[in-house]
Amino acid sequence: MTRLSLTGARVVTLDPKRRILDADVVVEDGRIRRIGTRARGAADKKAGTVLDCTGMVVIPGLVQAHVHLCQTLFRGLADDLALEDWLAKRIWPLEAAHTEESVYWSAMLGAAELLLGGTTAILDMETVRHTDAAFHALESIGIRATAGKCLMDAPSAPTGLREDTERALAEAMDLCARWDGRADGRLRWCWAPRFVPSCTGPLLRAVSDLAEKTGTLIHTHAAETPVELEMVMRETGQNEIAYLDAVGISGERAALAHCVWVDGEGIARLARQRTGIVHCPSSNLKLGSGIAPVPEMLAAGCRVAIGADGAPCNNRLDAFTEMRLAALIQKPRRGPEALPAAQVLELATLGGARVLGLEREVGSIEVGKLADLAVLDLSGPHAQPESADLVSRIVYSARASDVRHVIVGGRVVVQDGKLRTAKLEGIRREAGAHARRLSRAARV
Amino acid sequence: MTRLSLTGARVVTLDPKRRILDADVVVEDGRIRRIGTRARGAADKKAGTVLDCTGMVVIPGLVQAHVHLCQTLFRGLADDLALEDWLAKRIWPLEAAHTEESVYWSAMLGAAELLLGGTTAILDMETVRHTDAAFHALESIGIRATAGKCLMDAPSAPTGLREDTERALAEAMDLCARWDGRADGRLRWCWAPRFVPSCTGPLLRAVSDLAEKTGTLIHTHAAETPVELEMVMRETGQNEIAYLDAVGISGERAALAHCVWVDGEGIARLARQRTGIVHCPSSNLKLGSGIAPVPEMLAAGCRVAIGADGAPCNNRLDAFTEMRLAALIQKPRRGPEALPAAQVLELATLGGARVLGLEREVGSIEVGKLADLAVLDLSGPHAQPESADLVSRIVYSARASDVRHVIVGGRVVVQDGKLRTAKLEGIRREAGAHARRLSRAARV
Repeated sequence: MTRLSLTGARVVTLDPKRRILDADVVVEDGRIRRIGTRARGAADKKAGTVLDCTGMVVIPGLVQAHVHLCQTLFRGLADDLALEDWLAKRIWPLEAAHTEESVYWSAMLGAAELLLGGTTAILDMETVRHTDAAFHALESIGIRATAGKCLMDAPSAPTGLREDTERALAEAMDLCARWDGRADGRLRWCWAPRFVPSCTGPLLRAVSDLAEKTGTLIHTHAAETPVELEMVMRETGQNEIAYLDAVGISGERAALAHCVWVDGEGIARLARQRTGIVHCPSSNLKLGSGIAPVPEMLAAGCRVAIGADGAPCNNRLDAFTEMRLAALIQKPRRGPEALPAAQVLELATLGGARVLGLEREVGSIEVGKLADLAVLDLSGPHAQPESADLVSRIVYSARASDVRHVIVGGRVVVQDGKLRTAKLEGIRREAGAHARRLSRAARV
Repeated sequence: MTRLSLTGARVVTLDPKRRILDADVVVEDGRIRRIGTRARGAADKKAGTVLDCTGMVVIPGLVQAHVHLCQTLFRGLADDLALEDWLAKRIWPLEAAHTEESVYWSAMLGAAELLLGGTTAILDMETVRHTDAAFHALESIGIRATAGKCLMDAPSAPTGLREDTERALAEAMDLCARWDGRADGRLRWCWAPRFVPSCTGPLLRAVSDLAEKTGTLIHTHAAETPVELEMVMRETGQNEIAYLDAVGISGERAALAHCVWVDGEGIARLARQRTGIVHCPSSNLKLGSGIAPVPEMLAAGCRVAIGADGAPCNNRLDAFTEMRLAALIQKPRRGPEALPAAQVLELATLGGARVLGLEREVGSIEVGKLADLAVLDLSGPHAQPESADLVSRIVYSARASDVRHVIVGGRVVVQDGKLRTAKLEGIRREAGAHARRLSRAARV
């Protein structure tokens, strides 16, 4: 039995009573066994590895339910561009130029940033090729990840990335068989059709069937821009959310990134179906998409998570940035009381866990759950005075750089602000070399 | 002669050609004397203090032209509230409860955060009392600051803060005489009528005359909310911007924070008058005020700076957060090409310098200017790959915690991420104690 004890911290549990406790957290074999008042002496002997968290704050590991790790190397290569140019002139050529190695280092760079910033679980969409390499990176770096190969088979999909439907599905099934449940269940597979305009109906229906059969998630984009909605309406005669439902992409197995352009009827439908929604505030601003009606979604009972999306449309993969922004951007629309700090912290923890179908395993600090934890040092002047509301300090003031320790499934992956599972210097060097090669190859 | 050399960095000069150079920066007696290619050997002997910045990035010190350091202790005490409650139930009672000591530690806490985050110059509005204490803090901590006592004399101003017009002006004149130009010109005075609804016409006109006579700035709020505009229209029969102009608060001496609700005519007027505008994106979102039409202002030729406003409406005092947000929030309104990274970096450097009337002294890295500099370490995974556009990395990816060294007027105030001019532990302890006292006194 391996045992880890986090001692001396304030614990923001996100349990059903939303308790905030001065307590030690004891982890055994990757799961939380005890959250208790300080028992020194006898207990200490059995404490196993002890992580002294005196004066710090323990929160559930943050969950980001929409990222594209294959795009991390494109950070800063596609700024201040309209979505069409962004995709067609930058992202697609760059994705098409990826090699197995560049996908690997792109995932390593992104996952390193995520872990160092307290994000312990992600829902990831890779590109169409080399998804094995991404899984190898995710396996070695130690993040909890549900990832899938991007699927694009429609005639309108970019030629460098479009695949034959059957061949794409066959590769995806292989990947699912190989990776779903690996690393003690830390890695999982998802089906990742890019978005309706780049996928045929048969592909989408097959994905729905395969997800059901394999008990896995579907991860796609929806209702990001009015142009996209019009395209779907023209092609299918239906509103995009309704069309996705018609082809079986709805309900608890589905995670739809963005959902910026959803009306009251669409919101009611998403709530009724229990479809996962992933709010990406930075990305939706940076690409000029708009502001998703998150307070209305929450009021309707929708399941909402947050995500940074890819590095080229953010350009951070920072859950603290997304939390703060998620709260702030609603206030001019809905008044300053909209989406208060506590609700936002829930989106980034329990909300993400729900969309990932992992709400019994992660998202809060409760006995029996997996020990996915982030330990924050809020002693910096930017998070003072200490007497202020703790959840406000976490959501509005804290930064990714306040993260001191990160634990995924009981394993300490970040300690004292240093990544323990990979060497940053090597990641930086390899990521740099591959980014330069990709720029040249894609003429970006 | 004191000499300081920053060696080995990439220098983002913001000079008229916007050059980015691999160069050493040599500082003598507080001013930049040379920006040159690396001259080792002989030069090194005369280098004086050498700050090795190999692999780092030097930018002009960031300028924030609207902050309230007296509110730093209120951080996290007034979240998710409508502006009226925010002011009347929290900010005003808390300001009224301030003592000389709490104003001092509030300024120390805020200035520590600012300096550690690369902000070297501010325009600050204090509360009505104890402004001497704020100046003492600013003097000792080493930030470049233009600050003023808040003025409120209208019958509608809160009783705990309202002052007699003549007495308030007399105290302000004393403060101006005592502090304007102190610390070798690093400290300057500004006249700070809070905003039109809490000031009488005679006060505003007197402020305009006194600013002209003393050659100092006027720092106020304007056009933050529609409610404010209506109040001013009701009281004066004029649009707020026009009314401010009528009482002499316009032109290069005036810095108007917010200007969210300004129409085309107002923008044209502000441009023609060369009035300073201070954009506060976080604050305008968090209080639900809206989004200032900054691209339109810049297109009209307005002088625009950025600022974090006070800690309780942000809750950071972080120029990197404000820069990134300033860019992002315009894009849904005006398209993703609006307010690109380079334009935003200019707002936070030269733009701030212009509004402060210091454009000949700071805001860019040029020979002869004061050495107000921030040195960034962008080697973290969140700012990789290194081959990406450097200005994009600074505006969209970098964080306050990437700031390694900060120099104000040639003095190294932050080195290796540590504040050298004050002890953080003491600031934290005193700020905490005073924040608790203020909460109790103001029943917040």
